[in-house]
Amino acid sequence: MRIRPFSLDVPLTTKDLNLMNPKKSRVVICGLGPLGLLTVPFILERASLELVGAVDIDPQLAGRDVGELAGLGRVLGVKVRPDLEKTLRDTEAHVCILTTVSDLARLKPQLETAIRAGAYVVSTCEELSYPWTTAPDFCHQIDQLARENGVAVLGTGVNPGFLMDFLPQALTAVCRKVERVIVQRVQDASKRRIPFQKKIGAGLSLEEFAQKIKDGTLRHVGLTESLHMIASQFGWKLERTQDVIEPVVASERWVGETMTVQPGMALGVLQTGRGFRDGQEVITLVFRASVGEPDSYDRVLIEGEPRIDSTIKGGVHGDTATCAITVNAIRSIMKAAPGLHTMVDVPSVAWFEG
Amino acid sequence: MRIRPFSLDVPLTTKDLNLMNPKKSRVVICGLGPLGLLTVPFILERASLELVGAVDIDPQLAGRDVGELAGLGRVLGVKVRPDLEKTLRDTEAHVCILTTVSDLARLKPQLETAIRAGAYVVSTCEELSYPWTTAPDFCHQIDQLARENGVAVLGTGVNPGFLMDFLPQALTAVCRKVERVIVQRVQDASKRRIPFQKKIGAGLSLEEFAQKIKDGTLRHVGLTESLHMIASQFGWKLERTQDVIEPVVASERWVGETMTVQPGMALGVLQTGRGFRDGQEVITLVFRASVGEPDSYDRVLIEGEPRIDSTIKGGVHGDTATCAITVNAIRSIMKAAPGLHTMVDVPSVAWFEG
Repeated sequence: MRIRPFSLDVPLTTKDLNLMNPKKSRVVICGLGPLGLLTVPFILERASLELVGAVDIDPQLAGRDVGELAGLGRVLGVKVRPDLEKTLRDTEAHVCILTTVSDLARLKPQLETAIRAGAYVVSTCEELSYPWTTAPDFCHQIDQLARENGVAVLGTGVNPGFLMDFLPQALTAVCRKVERVIVQRVQDASKRRIPFQKKIGAGLSLEEFAQKIKDGTLRHVGLTESLHMIASQFGWKLERTQDVIEPVVASERWVGETMTVQPGMALGVLQTGRGFRDGQEVITLVFRASVGEPDSYDRVLIEGEPRIDSTIKGGVHGDTATCAITVNAIRSIMKAAPGLHTMVDVPSVAWFEG
Repeated sequence: MRIRPFSLDVPLTTKDLNLMNPKKSRVVICGLGPLGLLTVPFILERASLELVGAVDIDPQLAGRDVGELAGLGRVLGVKVRPDLEKTLRDTEAHVCILTTVSDLARLKPQLETAIRAGAYVVSTCEELSYPWTTAPDFCHQIDQLARENGVAVLGTGVNPGFLMDFLPQALTAVCRKVERVIVQRVQDASKRRIPFQKKIGAGLSLEEFAQKIKDGTLRHVGLTESLHMIASQFGWKLERTQDVIEPVVASERWVGETMTVQPGMALGVLQTGRGFRDGQEVITLVFRASVGEPDSYDRVLIEGEPRIDSTIKGGVHGDTATCAITVNAIRSIMKAAPGLHTMVDVPSVAWFEG
């Protein structure tokens, strides 16, 4: 295990950072899809981080400079390599950012490689955001391996990882009683880029929409993990969870700058996660993104004592937020004990300068 | 050190709680002022906690039953005792809740007594919410003592401890850049009890108001601590902080159910904390409570990328919330490593059942 650039347990101050972190944390990013490439400038602009390596299995990317691939208009001197283990060892990386896959099955070998190479891991893998309920065996294995290798591992992102799980459970800190949690993430897609509008199925016929659901290209991964993170924090055992996806259907003709949606066609997507306990729906997570929404917002409603009704006006943009929380989480995992963590058991993730 | 009823590091599930916490955590509460007494029913209604002792230095309270003092209409069999150390040892307490004083100087001997008796400590002492910047010597001593005795210590509350410090810094987790933080805690006091209206100076002449400020009976303690918690998380060094208190003055006659306020008299209080960096005001904390507010809310505004504008509609009631977060924090400190902690470095505090 390499020396950890941050201290354990004691809150960081600017002085601490200067004293205890004379060297930068050496970061390798693995997975140069859209999200990975978007994360690159977030790493570069942090004084405490140094991008020392980049890995992708796509042979088309091998040998290409990350600065060029990320569209930064400059060469970084960091070339894409195919071998994660060799890259981590050659670069003596402290941290591996995994922006590769959404499911644990495909993540596992990558995670094990990074841990065995002695790297702390932050991953945007949605299923890693809270795997303790759905995949306890995976968790115990990874937790054990991380402890043996003296590193901490965390799955995070804006959703899952923050808006629909960490934030609602954190808001209940001031509650005497909680009966039900409702989270609404509503996005007006009419002002977003065309690829986003297409991604949420805007303009599709209901048959095309159904086909996309079948193909698995429309589903947001993570509602189940968010349900379990909240329930676990509350000490609630959910007897049943649901994750239902359906189109938001236009009742009248919708005309936007980039497309027109006829009545009966899809304006976007509505995906709902539900957690049941004693026959009651106690957690409801609503993700709704369509070109027909009048407003964007992220709302958390806690039915309890006191009742909490919290809204982020305009909502939080997903891409920026996921890149940001991934990079911001690096400080928190370097302060955490070795093992597999989730957002609810690492020191509070926040933005930090430098 | 007694066996800790909760496990280390691994997220708690209902199963964990049942397996690892066969016995209840034994709690002693010290400081039976209004807040301490208000906290008593919050402890009693938790299945995982057992109130085993109560301490207060007031000789008038000695020997009286806590249930009776707290107005519960029943006898608990827990009588007020004057000696904290003896009570903690006799009851073999796991946890000591300190609801005594607002300042570190008077808290210190109580804290040391509790730590030496092997009790985990949660305190509502405002200055303990983030003492690392203003009282580093105190912190290092208490941290060392807590480590030696294998216990964790935390200062918390709704404000300071949550709304104006923990929550704003937590919201920046999704930020790429933060330039400025503004928090507004605004309370319409017209619907609150008369003691609260009096506490915030409603109905006073400006001379009476000034006298109350001089006497120190009107000031909210904790804005400075909140400024430092946020700044420290961001890695910002504040060159200067301000904590200014002033009356909200009636411009016209205000008539309520319980009082009438003439023009030129105080409707309530406006207290503002400001943190400066490179000559710029980068953190602004506004606490405003008056009978003339049209609305109650808790708002966090992060100027940055993305901009975050988050509002809790109706605001969060201070008393309930402080009692709740104090009791909810017990689980988090029992999962934390020994030492002095703050809200930003313990596992996420949330409500939990049982």
